[in-house]
Amino acid sequence: MGEVVALPDGVQAGSPGHLLTLLRAGSASTRPQLAAITGLARSTVAQRVDALLATGLVIEDGATASTGGRPATRLRFRPDAGLVLVGDLGATHARVGVTDLAGAVLAEVAEDVDIAAGPGAVLDWLGAHFADLLSSIGRSADEVRGVGIGVPGPVEHDSGRPVSPPIMPGWDAYPIPEHFAERFPGAPVLVDNDVNIMALGEYWTSFRRSVDDLLFIKVGTGIGCGIVASGRIHRGAQGAAGDLGHVQVPGYEDAVCRCGNVACVEAIAGGQALADRLRAAGHDTRNARAVVELVAAGDRDAIRMVRDAGRTLGHVLAAAVNFFNPAVIVIGGDVANAHEPLLAGIREVVYQRSLPLATRHLRVVHSQLGDGAGIRGASAMVVEHLLAPATVDELVTTAAADRAAN
Amino acid sequence: MGEVVALPDGVQAGSPGHLLTLLRAGSASTRPQLAAITGLARSTVAQRVDALLATGLVIEDGATASTGGRPATRLRFRPDAGLVLVGDLGATHARVGVTDLAGAVLAEVAEDVDIAAGPGAVLDWLGAHFADLLSSIGRSADEVRGVGIGVPGPVEHDSGRPVSPPIMPGWDAYPIPEHFAERFPGAPVLVDNDVNIMALGEYWTSFRRSVDDLLFIKVGTGIGCGIVASGRIHRGAQGAAGDLGHVQVPGYEDAVCRCGNVACVEAIAGGQALADRLRAAGHDTRNARAVVELVAAGDRDAIRMVRDAGRTLGHVLAAAVNFFNPAVIVIGGDVANAHEPLLAGIREVVYQRSLPLATRHLRVVHSQLGDGAGIRGASAMVVEHLLAPATVDELVTTAAADRAAN
Repeated sequence: MGEVVALPDGVQAGSPGHLLTLLRAGSASTRPQLAAITGLARSTVAQRVDALLATGLVIEDGATASTGGRPATRLRFRPDAGLVLVGDLGATHARVGVTDLAGAVLAEVAEDVDIAAGPGAVLDWLGAHFADLLSSIGRSADEVRGVGIGVPGPVEHDSGRPVSPPIMPGWDAYPIPEHFAERFPGAPVLVDNDVNIMALGEYWTSFRRSVDDLLFIKVGTGIGCGIVASGRIHRGAQGAAGDLGHVQVPGYEDAVCRCGNVACVEAIAGGQALADRLRAAGHDTRNARAVVELVAAGDRDAIRMVRDAGRTLGHVLAAAVNFFNPAVIVIGGDVANAHEPLLAGIREVVYQRSLPLATRHLRVVHSQLGDGAGIRGASAMVVEHLLAPATVDELVTTAAADRAAN
Repeated sequence: MGEVVALPDGVQAGSPGHLLTLLRAGSASTRPQLAAITGLARSTVAQRVDALLATGLVIEDGATASTGGRPATRLRFRPDAGLVLVGDLGATHARVGVTDLAGAVLAEVAEDVDIAAGPGAVLDWLGAHFADLLSSIGRSADEVRGVGIGVPGPVEHDSGRPVSPPIMPGWDAYPIPEHFAERFPGAPVLVDNDVNIMALGEYWTSFRRSVDDLLFIKVGTGIGCGIVASGRIHRGAQGAAGDLGHVQVPGYEDAVCRCGNVACVEAIAGGQALADRLRAAGHDTRNARAVVELVAAGDRDAIRMVRDAGRTLGHVLAAAVNFFNPAVIVIGGDVANAHEPLLAGIREVVYQRSLPLATRHLRVVHSQLGDGAGIRGASAMVVEHLLAPATVDELVTTAAADRAAN
């Protein structure tokens, strides 16, 4: 049995979608290179490249330097062949953007918005911002190839419906994609949990070339986790995976959590819990951001409390490291802006309590994207769907059938 | 953009490997059915079926009942087209078997063997048993298509080498596959952690048609966990995923674990810990099996202690449920034979401490396979590798090239 050539999951070897994958990755940039990598006949490659050129996803872009023979025409993926609209909806704050098909942010805006206003009002607001952003860069709705939205609750990803989301009154089972079906016909609308899209944003922007398994921990008002397993978001049986905030920390049975249980890590180490405790000690801290400001100002109570929160979170993460064995843990969310004391506390316990093998190459790092992780992840979610080889093959087939019919 | 037809990961639509997948799943059993499902021309299907017939993996098996037209010849996957040798090596005990390509066990044997005797002695012992089992069923080494082995430690799956295994002296980085390369040329040798193959055995035998995400918990001398995520074993960055046994349980800081830490769940609720505690209380319990016997005999100390162990394990599993959101948790290993008290303790805490959404449809069940899970999982691991569409396509191509060359 010969060597099996490794292809990404779902890639049909040598199909137009596969060729596009090779061009996007920079593995090839000419027809002869595509033929050499895939083993296809040059005539077959030429035919399939023509099909890709017809979709507009690929363009011819000058000639390569000659090495004696006739110079080959250079092929290039064209990120500008379409637009992606993205929205990262938090509990009280949202970020909206337009990206190209390489995930580059072309325009964005951040505003306060109350998710509890319900799906009708919030999605109308989102739609209005989509329209404003498009017109601000002089582009039209016709160019929109897909829409990606993150929401602060569990989502049934296949249908784009929230599932019993605790802080989103009125959204349970609401079919978010249908809200945009008429305005952007033919553009898929993908919805996921906000922490999942942040995890995907961090993964795609900084780690996908070197890492398969990553955890993204959001330490904000509450605590959540996005899981990347083998390069994909792990959502679990009910789309509820990653809910680390309600793991119990024994010894804190007097800490009552908003979920109805006691001693949840979120009720001890979450941003709101820290703000409440500091306020009880006489500080003017209404929320997680105020806690971070106090840390930045050098307040010793606040610094010690954040470091303790890091240790508490470290116990939960040590268990997650033993269980999941990630290569990287990225810490984000408002409280993560307190930087060193939080990470020091986390690292202290994770390296003490996890198995040596699991921490041998483990990196625990700050988010590099901050508040921008969500829209980048929402874009990556949509782009990877749109440019998946199977989707591209289907697009090519449909386009050819349309041409044949005309 | 038209509807994307869902294919299993890595399946090339309409390739010989894909056709075999459809025949194995029972989705099609004639050439016309294959053509209807794949949309391929009948002549293309006929050609690819011929290629499969040439490999021996598919046979023609009579005709279908006529529905007016000419009856179509029935095609059938032939599990007997090859053999798989499997070994499940534990710390002190091993099970060895021969299966067909459908995972059916044709012969098996279980014996005591000390893994600490080192790779040379243990793998020679395993090889001798492979030979004995083959001759006991009158089959030859030529028919062996693959070998699957489980070992009680972390494994780098791609190379089949153990990675710093704590209870396997002499095995660190030992290239297990090379030991069998000469005897079974051309047959891939796949190696994984023993708990991973048990998880895969449970998954493939009982759950793969209905479930994507499953945890298998082995409660034996120690405690381990095998993770099935989206239908595949999740191994993690260092192959160390699933090491639940060393998660800390606060409040038990006097329990010293063999790993060098204190308060590990294994040092509190593992079979050896229970045996030691019962022995200290005057019972004659040397190991986990003796604990189970005491429970079966109705001893109240033992029953209470096992139920408490279930509760302790339940705290760790509740965190894993919040984090991973599995559809099923299967409890196996020697201590699981104590049945009700252990499961009652686990369920009590998991349902109390996990989020309602994550436990809405969660099942916590006993292993149905018991000691037989490992060899079934080792077989499934090899069969799925051998019959993966990409591997079959490669086999078909190689066979055609060989014929052309002769």
